[in-house]
Amino acid sequence: MEKSYVVAVVGATGAVGTKMIEMLEQTKLPIKQIKLLASKRSAGKELKFKDQTLVVEELVPASFENVDIALFSAGGGISKVFAPEAVKRGAVVIDNTSHFRMAADVPLVVPEVNREALKKHQGIIANPNCSTIQMMVALEPIRQAVGLDRIIVSTYQAVSGAGISAVEELKKQAVDYINGTPADGLTAEIMPCGGDKKHYPIAFNALPQIDVFSDDDYTYEEWKMVNETKKIMEDDTLKVSATCVRIPVLSGHSESVYIEVENETSVTAIREVLSAAPGVVLQDDPSQQLYPQALTSVDKKDTFVGRIRKDLDEDKGFHLWIVSDNLLKGAAWNSVQIAETLHEMDLVRV
Amino acid sequence: MEKSYVVAVVGATGAVGTKMIEMLEQTKLPIKQIKLLASKRSAGKELKFKDQTLVVEELVPASFENVDIALFSAGGGISKVFAPEAVKRGAVVIDNTSHFRMAADVPLVVPEVNREALKKHQGIIANPNCSTIQMMVALEPIRQAVGLDRIIVSTYQAVSGAGISAVEELKKQAVDYINGTPADGLTAEIMPCGGDKKHYPIAFNALPQIDVFSDDDYTYEEWKMVNETKKIMEDDTLKVSATCVRIPVLSGHSESVYIEVENETSVTAIREVLSAAPGVVLQDDPSQQLYPQALTSVDKKDTFVGRIRKDLDEDKGFHLWIVSDNLLKGAAWNSVQIAETLHEMDLVRV
Repeated sequence: MEKSYVVAVVGATGAVGTKMIEMLEQTKLPIKQIKLLASKRSAGKELKFKDQTLVVEELVPASFENVDIALFSAGGGISKVFAPEAVKRGAVVIDNTSHFRMAADVPLVVPEVNREALKKHQGIIANPNCSTIQMMVALEPIRQAVGLDRIIVSTYQAVSGAGISAVEELKKQAVDYINGTPADGLTAEIMPCGGDKKHYPIAFNALPQIDVFSDDDYTYEEWKMVNETKKIMEDDTLKVSATCVRIPVLSGHSESVYIEVENETSVTAIREVLSAAPGVVLQDDPSQQLYPQALTSVDKKDTFVGRIRKDLDEDKGFHLWIVSDNLLKGAAWNSVQIAETLHEMDLVRV
Repeated sequence: MEKSYVVAVVGATGAVGTKMIEMLEQTKLPIKQIKLLASKRSAGKELKFKDQTLVVEELVPASFENVDIALFSAGGGISKVFAPEAVKRGAVVIDNTSHFRMAADVPLVVPEVNREALKKHQGIIANPNCSTIQMMVALEPIRQAVGLDRIIVSTYQAVSGAGISAVEELKKQAVDYINGTPADGLTAEIMPCGGDKKHYPIAFNALPQIDVFSDDDYTYEEWKMVNETKKIMEDDTLKVSATCVRIPVLSGHSESVYIEVENETSVTAIREVLSAAPGVVLQDDPSQQLYPQALTSVDKKDTFVGRIRKDLDEDKGFHLWIVSDNLLKGAAWNSVQIAETLHEMDLVRV
């Protein structure tokens, strides 16, 4: 008889949590039961899963009794406290926060890229940062084909990664500004970063800060892209630098990526490699004005790649434009895909 | 007696033209008379200049009789036909379109960078592309100090560069989307490029196309940044590549710029150089979340620079975030500043 799992979603009412439920509705993972967990404040809320109505329960350590797979997306502090409680009770944790990502004993996984890393899991598997995931899906096939020496990325990130309240903030600011509120009169309480001191409007603006700053003047978001890329690609010598920017988009992260490859190749060869790559949809036909767009990436699980050009000066340099729905491949879908892969590889104890 | 000029504004009712009038109200250039010119459709409109009410006249060749300085911003086709007519009648033309920019006998000028080039003018001076100008203002002082080998830029460009109708389109799409119109139901008639075949919504989107595509899959906007940079800096060996992207911002272009310099330097040294640079305002204090923003750049003549960081791998590599009001320093203010500089250098026949 095929295995079948009890799956918990921690942070079920959040921007990513609700998408996790949607992805679990579509997954081929055999599911016996779904458990929705959230803070006391959200407990009692009713959410749909297929034709069932499920009641959100308050998250406590005992919530994980009998749970086989627990998907976490309720903030790093919650993962820190409750992921070990879930593991203690026999669950495999797939954590969407940054808390465990760089821990040596925690695999950091994009299934298209490094599914083999799952074999070493010790109860917790980390889902990489949204902006890292889509870049990995697009660049790994190129790395496999011709090697990769260097990445310089500038991001164009949507607000939904910062939660439902950030989406509402952007919408309200946009309407207020159009109705005549001056820029310095707009209410800003979340962007660029809920946990930082100052807040700025994001409507009709571009904010070159995501997450807080580290001592070296890079933001933590930028460091996530650098460190996670090296961990996922298992290459400490890979050169990576990032500039992470929030723009007034609701969902769908875009990235302007410059790469230098190890062996000579061509735009045509890169297009061929990406046409055949798992999880990638090539959208690259300038004659038809075909290129990836944030708006058209929403609700899709793929990573869209286009605007592939040879650098004008560097023979082994290429530019790409990479777009994906940050809530799906960047978060909920990648997490559910990890669960599917664990099942395929028979890595979940039941 | 000091010289005093008759100044014409061609395209006076447009997004840039109206800003040109504002800048002429603030200029130290001695102005004897202002002439507002536009298409037949706009002729008869009344516009304010200081406390005068001026009537817009229809643009015809004879409009330039007695004009000393003519500021053009009515599209490349108008400049092509009417700039020679103005020159024939003794005017100096400062053209904000791309039409004459790469002509060998036309100086392409950012006054902070290459005012000496004005000496060679033969009647027409070109105002560079908005996205090029602000990058030049920020990078030239660094180039003077430590040399410049390479530029890789990704832009975050506002819609106002595409005219007043593009601003209205973005606002209408934003309101419609928030009120429930799905992305594929939004009306899009201008973006990404009025002259191209297909149009896409820009509200809550990022469009990696500005101007039409050239045969090599770069857009003309990207080529403008490459070619104009080399011409202004008078260095054909300078390596430049650009990715130009439109984002849902009304005014204020932002740029994520990576540079490689020739001689070793530091972030501290670059900050010092930029603190003293003409036209630059340094906004770079991560501990105070201080960095340039599109919204706060609007209506300012300066170029704002921040997020200066050493590249994580390349010793001579640095990242910068450069922001300016595309309608002012990117267009109207740079044009009026060229007029002021011509006056200072006594390069206008009267």
